[in-house]
Amino acid sequence: MNFASDNWAGAHPQIAEALTNNAGGYASAYGTGDLDRQVERIFCDVFERDVAVFFVGTGTAANSLSLAWAAKPGGVAFCHAEAHAIDDEGGAPEYLTGGARLKGVAGPLGRMDPNALDAAIRAHPAEFVHAGQPMAASITQATEIGTLYSLDEIETIAGICRESDIPLHLDGARFANALVALETTPAEMTWKRGVDIVSFGGTKNGCWCAEAIVVLDPAKVGQMHFLRKRAAQLFSKSRFIAAQFEAYFRNDLWLKTAQHANAMAADLASAISATDGTRLAWQPQANEVFALMTAEKAKTLQAAGAKFYPWKHPLSFTDEVGTGEVLHRFVTSFATERSEIEAFRQALNG
Amino acid sequence: MNFASDNWAGAHPQIAEALTNNAGGYASAYGTGDLDRQVERIFCDVFERDVAVFFVGTGTAANSLSLAWAAKPGGVAFCHAEAHAIDDEGGAPEYLTGGARLKGVAGPLGRMDPNALDAAIRAHPAEFVHAGQPMAASITQATEIGTLYSLDEIETIAGICRESDIPLHLDGARFANALVALETTPAEMTWKRGVDIVSFGGTKNGCWCAEAIVVLDPAKVGQMHFLRKRAAQLFSKSRFIAAQFEAYFRNDLWLKTAQHANAMAADLASAISATDGTRLAWQPQANEVFALMTAEKAKTLQAAGAKFYPWKHPLSFTDEVGTGEVLHRFVTSFATERSEIEAFRQALNG
Amino acid sequence: MNFASDNWAGAHPQIAEALTNNAGGYASAYGTGDLDRQVERIFCDVFERDVAVFFVGTGTAANSLSLAWAAKPGGVAFCHAEAHAIDDEGGAPEYLTGGARLKGVAGPLGRMDPNALDAAIRAHPAEFVHAGQPMAASITQATEIGTLYSLDEIETIAGICRESDIPLHLDGARFANALVALETTPAEMTWKRGVDIVSFGGTKNGCWCAEAIVVLDPAKVGQMHFLRKRAAQLFSKSRFIAAQFEAYFRNDLWLKTAQHANAMAADLASAISATDGTRLAWQPQANEVFALMTAEKAKTLQAAGAKFYPWKHPLSFTDEVGTGEVLHRFVTSFATERSEIEAFRQALNG
Amino acid sequence: MNFASDNWAGAHPQIAEALTNNAGGYASAYGTGDLDRQVERIFCDVFERDVAVFFVGTGTAANSLSLAWAAKPGGVAFCHAEAHAIDDEGGAPEYLTGGARLKGVAGPLGRMDPNALDAAIRAHPAEFVHAGQPMAASITQATEIGTLYSLDEIETIAGICRESDIPLHLDGARFANALVALETTPAEMTWKRGVDIVSFGGTKNGCWCAEAIVVLDPAKVGQMHFLRKRAAQLFSKSRFIAAQFEAYFRNDLWLKTAQHANAMAADLASAISATDGTRLAWQPQANEVFALMTAEKAKTLQAAGAKFYPWKHPLSFTDEVGTGEVLHRFVTSFATERSEIEAFRQALNG
Repeated sequence: MNFASDNWAGAHPQIAEALTNNAGGYASAYGTGDLDRQVERIFCDVFERDVAVFFVGTGTAANSLSLAWAAKPGGVAFCHAEAHAIDDEGGAPEYLTGGARLKGVAGPLGRMDPNALDAAIRAHPAEFVHAGQPMAASITQATEIGTLYSLDEIETIAGICRESDIPLHLDGARFANALVALETTPAEMTWKRGVDIVSFGGTKNGCWCAEAIVVLDPAKVGQMHFLRKRAAQLFSKSRFIAAQFEAYFRNDLWLKTAQHANAMAADLASAISATDGTRLAWQPQANEVFALMTAEKAKTLQAAGAKFYPWKHPLSFTDEVGTGEVLHRFVTSFATERSEIEAFRQALNG
Repeated sequence: MNFASDNWAGAHPQIAEALTNNAGGYASAYGTGDLDRQVERIFCDVFERDVAVFFVGTGTAANSLSLAWAAKPGGVAFCHAEAHAIDDEGGAPEYLTGGARLKGVAGPLGRMDPNALDAAIRAHPAEFVHAGQPMAASITQATEIGTLYSLDEIETIAGICRESDIPLHLDGARFANALVALETTPAEMTWKRGVDIVSFGGTKNGCWCAEAIVVLDPAKVGQMHFLRKRAAQLFSKSRFIAAQFEAYFRNDLWLKTAQHANAMAADLASAISATDGTRLAWQPQANEVFALMTAEKAKTLQAAGAKFYPWKHPLSFTDEVGTGEVLHRFVTSFATERSEIEAFRQALNG
Repeated sequence: MNFASDNWAGAHPQIAEALTNNAGGYASAYGTGDLDRQVERIFCDVFERDVAVFFVGTGTAANSLSLAWAAKPGGVAFCHAEAHAIDDEGGAPEYLTGGARLKGVAGPLGRMDPNALDAAIRAHPAEFVHAGQPMAASITQATEIGTLYSLDEIETIAGICRESDIPLHLDGARFANALVALETTPAEMTWKRGVDIVSFGGTKNGCWCAEAIVVLDPAKVGQMHFLRKRAAQLFSKSRFIAAQFEAYFRNDLWLKTAQHANAMAADLASAISATDGTRLAWQPQANEVFALMTAEKAKTLQAAGAKFYPWKHPLSFTDEVGTGEVLHRFVTSFATERSEIEAFRQALNG
Repeated sequence: MNFASDNWAGAHPQIAEALTNNAGGYASAYGTGDLDRQVERIFCDVFERDVAVFFVGTGTAANSLSLAWAAKPGGVAFCHAEAHAIDDEGGAPEYLTGGARLKGVAGPLGRMDPNALDAAIRAHPAEFVHAGQPMAASITQATEIGTLYSLDEIETIAGICRESDIPLHLDGARFANALVALETTPAEMTWKRGVDIVSFGGTKNGCWCAEAIVVLDPAKVGQMHFLRKRAAQLFSKSRFIAAQFEAYFRNDLWLKTAQHANAMAADLASAISATDGTRLAWQPQANEVFALMTAEKAKTLQAAGAKFYPWKHPLSFTDEVGTGEVLHRFVTSFATERSEIEAFRQALNG
């Protein structure tokens, strides 16, 4: 019963196997090998257009370098007030962009409110040097609290960005979970709606360490090659990332693992809803479930072997909360077993 | 016959196997899991003292963050004029240190001359703010051209650093190759001789992606935790690095792979020496061989299937070179097979 | 009738005269001349203790380097949500600190609420590397909206900082205006209450360009000498800053000009209060007056020759505002003449 | 007899007077006032074309921001191996460019050798991300050792830059001294020969603090407005810089002060040449004289009241030097009086 985080899981067997299969032989280093090239072409297929792909080692790097790609002196990047990039990257986005400010924008349940975004951007008029200048907006899909932007919402935000001539970044640490939940395609969820650059995460969904920055229009690749090298993210044996992605995409493994994780989350949510004394804080849409229960109830469950954590109330969650009710987070992954959900259901009712 | 570089090889089978063995189960993320802790203790055993270990993803990161650890405003780091950190890191050390200058110091065959180092440091008197301030020295062991600092030479350089109150960094991208060539121990090659911080490389010697920064005195760990996070080098599933190192050290695998690579280089060197029209530029001491031959001879060998490259003449190589003689580099690794050497020997004489 | 800003004024005649008097002769450059030393001693007298003084050219530099002095990797600096450092420095604090985040803290009328500050700091526990680490707090005195922290409020905030082991910075762009309004001494307003470092502004109060960073405990000067040089703020002919400060302090010129500016602001405020259709948004405490009036009324006054601007409603101003009432800012300075106030009073009633 | 440096002088009386004359009245701040605009137009006249002008406070800032304007990730800027930017800016160029490397290029007597520059640039092929990428070249005119690039030499270097598509910066801390020595015009010495951006120094030639970055093609102004603000170099009362430049250019004051300084240097050089036991190290071309003499001789002169310093032998000075001969630097300025030269001549012969 481990619902601590999707990065507490290891690697999917097919990912591990792919690494072993690619361990032998010589390959040109630093992203120039045959397998790298082949996986780049797979990305183009997945996104239904030519894209430029940059493998990096961490989601922090993917997000930070995506913003660095858009950076300007005195630059301000707009993201949700509770975005991972603001609260949980240890200053990496600021550092790797040369000092950009991440401006938190309000919005319900983890999603930026388009009007608030528009107002925030307009507070930085082009010629007023003192306020800095807008450089990018960034949305997280699925969001930090397990909710989703609809495709229309993405399009609306992209439209606001385009008016202000700033690119739109999508932090896709849980890209696959969002994709299958929306029953859509990578193309529809990104460039067809106006997204310019994606942090495409594989790690949380079954890889060891496979993250990619996808520049959706390869003509706009800009300085990304040098930015990645300068940030120490160009891996010599980059085929070990390529090999993970090759397995990740083969036979839609990535969609299957995401569907599994989401299904497990839905089951977990049902169990919580169906139990007296525990309730969902809001409706989960991907693989994260946020529930309200007393600290005592949580302790009982943890004593029964369930691993999960209390969570800070997001500012954007404004429902009334009963006395003693504490917010807790549960995360599922490719590795979550149905038996863990069943055991948890029993613990709930135990 | 692939002598292009030791990072063209993949992973040693035991490394790949270790990853597969550790793929299942849940483990606490971001370097806090049991395996991480266990491998940290192995590092302490290897170095025969308590050390602080920080896994990172690339050698560039290990070097850059080691220097960042020592950084000061207006800081100057001293390394050999042909150091990898100056010529081949794409500006990562400068960026991740907040703008440090890497000052090239002269010295024969890839090794800093102690007197030149001393003079370079003294050119930055403590109170003369315009010149910047010394912040660290860095040696590469084995050097960029396959030579070695003796233990006494390391001690001499460390003594100069101590007098100026700057730490000494050792870039050990090929740490194991140097270690076995000197028939010494990690303790003797580092802290017993005055080294303060090590980039401990596993990647070139058989890992996929396993690098560690080793702070030899854990009381001096300073801001390294935050520096690593800020540089986007804290891996969520860090057990995949830990697992590689666990296998790397188990049963002295790392020493065996390094001994093998060095032995292959020695055989390659013998073959080159024994052949009319090819000669060693200088005596190889680890797993890199630099040879002089005409471009035609090189082409013939390449046509026969040998993979290797021409190389820029190091400034510190001042021997006379015959007309038409071109410098070429050959690198061996754990993956080099004896049959490749034999094939090359035949091609030489072919 | 120019109330646009106190930096629209030029220089006080005694400041200009001091420059002329010091224009001749040779003096050692880069802050090492006799006049520099003499003015440093005056600062010690003014602050009633040994202090370390660093002249810089702009208030932006003084604030940014004060924070750089306190910077840590992943560092977070806490200041009021409407602080100049966040909204109006064009990213200089972030850049010159190597990417620090400025975290806005709420509080009424331009002053950080101590409890909110405490909570904000505690949201960054020492060992949680993802959130970054507290590095400093910064208060503006007088605040951006012309209010003041009482000495007790400063002491309370300093106490919170001390508990978390972070230094307290005071942005004193309008130090003198605050000082004379509180009828206190520099010592009382700073180190006796726990302030560690001050941006001591002379420019807005009658100098051309005279700003100083004052490190109140000279034993804690740290890397400031190199930080200033690295930020291109070490002036060769620094005696031209020293000469301004020498005149600034002589015969208490600085206190007189500040008293004058504050008195002019008080008169302006009285006139506004006494007029139908205009009212003070809140009570001015230094040399800035914020008033509510219709846009039409403002236009009439501007047409009569008054220079002033509409102002964004601070979040910390939550009074009810009538339909059509717009906030406007008026700033007085050493250069404001009584006749300007009188003319404005007539225009108000005209 | 003060020949310590041209920044040991104060301000020319006409500069000081201009400040006093402009001390009164209100003016729009941050470079938007009437006087700022007027002086920008004077710069256009001086350069015989539309140019974009950015006032900054120090030469360090002018150089660093000129390079920041050209910066790229992993960027390498080429300048003479003994350039001020490398040796004497305390890391400001590296910091303000976000970590650029300054690559020293050899060349006789302070001037980059065009072939060496070309080779240095070509060592960074466009697609080899590891070596970084060329971003700018920078020449100092007059050079750090008082020599000059001829107009043809500038044109040659600019041609090399254009071929590699990098801009050419001219560090004109002693722009006027070079200009009058070459008997040319600002247009001829810069854009007509291919220079793209100039650090235009007024401070060493009679101003208190007046430096300007001149972007010679205003269409290429890029991010300079935001770069300057981010570097804390946008002065609120910028008219105090404008006023200095207004006086500097009025009635050719700047040319007269430079001619005077150069003439004093020539006289000083003659005196040195004419004296037994002292000799010129090389022919001075502007306002700096480098002479060889024994330490004893120097001490005698200093005891007689002459202020000057021993100087490190430039690498690019390869003449044979007699036993005991030590290099010394003498600098003249607008403030040097003929009587000082006469007194020195007497001391030489005393």
